[in-house]
Amino acid sequence: MAVGSGYTGEIFPVAGIKLAAAKSGIRYRDCFDLVLIELAENSNVAGVFTQNLFCAAPVTVAKNHIRSELPRYFLINTGNANAGTGHAGELNALRSCDAIAGISDVLVEQVLPFSTGVIGEQLPVEKIIAIAPELFVNLASDKWEDAAWGILTTDTRPKLVSTQVELKGKKVTLTGIAKGSGMIKPNMATMLAFVFTDAVINEELLNQLLKQFADKSFNRITVDGDMSTNDCCMLVATGKANISIDKLDDSDCAKFMKELQQVFIELSTQLIKDGEGATKFITVNIESGKTSEECLQVAYAIAESMLVKTAIFASDPNWGRILAAIGCAGIEDLDIHTVTIDIGDVRIVSNGRVDLDYTEEKGQSQMNADEITLTIGLQRGKFKESIWTTDLSHDYISINADYRT
Amino acid sequence: MAVGSGYTGEIFPVAGIKLAAAKSGIRYRDCFDLVLIELAENSNVAGVFTQNLFCAAPVTVAKNHIRSELPRYFLINTGNANAGTGHAGELNALRSCDAIAGISDVLVEQVLPFSTGVIGEQLPVEKIIAIAPELFVNLASDKWEDAAWGILTTDTRPKLVSTQVELKGKKVTLTGIAKGSGMIKPNMATMLAFVFTDAVINEELLNQLLKQFADKSFNRITVDGDMSTNDCCMLVATGKANISIDKLDDSDCAKFMKELQQVFIELSTQLIKDGEGATKFITVNIESGKTSEECLQVAYAIAESMLVKTAIFASDPNWGRILAAIGCAGIEDLDIHTVTIDIGDVRIVSNGRVDLDYTEEKGQSQMNADEITLTIGLQRGKFKESIWTTDLSHDYISINADYRT
Repeated sequence: MAVGSGYTGEIFPVAGIKLAAAKSGIRYRDCFDLVLIELAENSNVAGVFTQNLFCAAPVTVAKNHIRSELPRYFLINTGNANAGTGHAGELNALRSCDAIAGISDVLVEQVLPFSTGVIGEQLPVEKIIAIAPELFVNLASDKWEDAAWGILTTDTRPKLVSTQVELKGKKVTLTGIAKGSGMIKPNMATMLAFVFTDAVINEELLNQLLKQFADKSFNRITVDGDMSTNDCCMLVATGKANISIDKLDDSDCAKFMKELQQVFIELSTQLIKDGEGATKFITVNIESGKTSEECLQVAYAIAESMLVKTAIFASDPNWGRILAAIGCAGIEDLDIHTVTIDIGDVRIVSNGRVDLDYTEEKGQSQMNADEITLTIGLQRGKFKESIWTTDLSHDYISINADYRT
Repeated sequence: MAVGSGYTGEIFPVAGIKLAAAKSGIRYRDCFDLVLIELAENSNVAGVFTQNLFCAAPVTVAKNHIRSELPRYFLINTGNANAGTGHAGELNALRSCDAIAGISDVLVEQVLPFSTGVIGEQLPVEKIIAIAPELFVNLASDKWEDAAWGILTTDTRPKLVSTQVELKGKKVTLTGIAKGSGMIKPNMATMLAFVFTDAVINEELLNQLLKQFADKSFNRITVDGDMSTNDCCMLVATGKANISIDKLDDSDCAKFMKELQQVFIELSTQLIKDGEGATKFITVNIESGKTSEECLQVAYAIAESMLVKTAIFASDPNWGRILAAIGCAGIEDLDIHTVTIDIGDVRIVSNGRVDLDYTEEKGQSQMNADEITLTIGLQRGKFKESIWTTDLSHDYISINADYRT
């Protein structure tokens, strides 16, 4: 199940990026499960990684590699997370990088490995090594859809965004792919995202942009509150468009920045719309909070309440559960008598109790939609935050109860 | 669904306590939904209440009343939580107390109201007033089962414990009832519990005992991480057995204390075994932590992980999800290389990775049971904590998606 449709627009290749996908048979038969992405020489690369202490072997390796050399290849496998696999797991990740480095004549540190899938099983690295030459034969600038398919696990459809923006009379391209549909939670989750542009962006600024935009997109989504061992988000600037993004106050740069932010938000909300078992796409807006932190605290208390999520699955405007979630969000001095709750444009709660003009019919009309917006007013300050989440359905249980069997 | 069977032992009346249940039709037809409990004069009463900021009207009223007078009556309704109902809700709670006070000739402050059920609808107080005289006619010392049934919402069976202990040649009785099966989480949840004894216990000690034992029982259980607006736990000492519990170092008192603790643990685990949609009863033990707090942090990260819960529902020894939950429990300086995970008596993870002697068959044999114990060793200190939880099943979704419809 998924909400709405996936990306249907044009996909613009990014100058300096080639991709290939292969069927290595790591776990599934006859579907793409291994992706190679080649970055032009001198591309700048920024990365953010899971904060789970049990981070997977490929995450450890990728973090080491990106610190020491400019990356030339991303090697991404699905079906096996290579997590909880100890020292052998790291060796396997290194061996897979080595296979790519050997064929392409780059340093092993210039290859970054990414894995997603089942935790705790050793990576069948021989399958990766065996099919590596085929990946190189297939590398091409237009294989975005193959790559987007090749990194999926329980996702039901690929996540892709592509856009172009004109700066100083030249076109700059932004194209990204992502995967992830369960175990999604702030601080990066079972989520892999790769965003590419042909703009020229120096490493320092690239890192800054990645942190800023990932924080307002991938770090604002939650399916089940679980944080994975493997997630990574990479931002690559190949520089091939010869347009430099450097002055943050320049109007062209601002235009680029806005597009980039939109790419991040679009990819992250695509993840949520295809969240495990999702039948609803829910935006939770918290307004007039004292701090950003307290806005997020309330937002997550609502978005991760199993009772709120099941009510929304049932299209039930059960505002009592939203109210209960706010009440235990941990904001000790919250005056409950000022809280407002809107579903869509219907005011449900004002002054901490059911609004006098509210009727079940009005609430129901909002809840029947696939995309639902909850807006909570705290009346305490000037801060606001938004996060995105899904409902909790029978399919979520089925998907996660059956995942390994 | 529920795990194992409910209480099947003898129920011992508590001298000084009378009970009655009635079918008021607040929400459901033809089942007990209103309970009156009469406490003998001079009974001491201690109470702990929900910490949800949106606490329900009856909680506000009960807290006010218990502060001002010695309670004589508990009036408990199910089907309507009288929460999120504003000032009108408090008036309704007061009117229901007033009906009881009028008939029995006690002060309105000597009646404590308790409500559980749907949030946000006004209490149909006329139905309560109409049936109040019938409750008094039926008051009897042996109506424990009626009362236990009369306070349930989505519970599938009543929760009851009863025991007697011999102190100084005389018998002291301890009998309790409780309700609650979803929205269960530390700091009291949609949970009502009433424990009675005929021992003599002064108010100060009674409050101390209640806090101590509720903390290690009702505050150590979680079904879905949601905290309700209505929960309360009350401990009553009627004094009618003429046995005084006062010296905490006395061996007879210690014997009583041990029984009382057992009554609390038994009632709270009965709640979990009948948790919404529960097919498994899960004990999470955290050992060798640096502090109690960090043990609980890890315990709840596991117990509230939807991925861990769905894996257990599927009887899948998916230890990778447990490991991922520990990794994001928020203990920043945790050395993952020392962590151990046991399921029952099978070691699954040692040194932060899969144990060399572990086989899927061994794990599976433990997971097939109805009652599962997860033990996590942190190897950081001397503290340990245990909590109890359920799996997450299709029935949980069905129950909570359909609750109001």
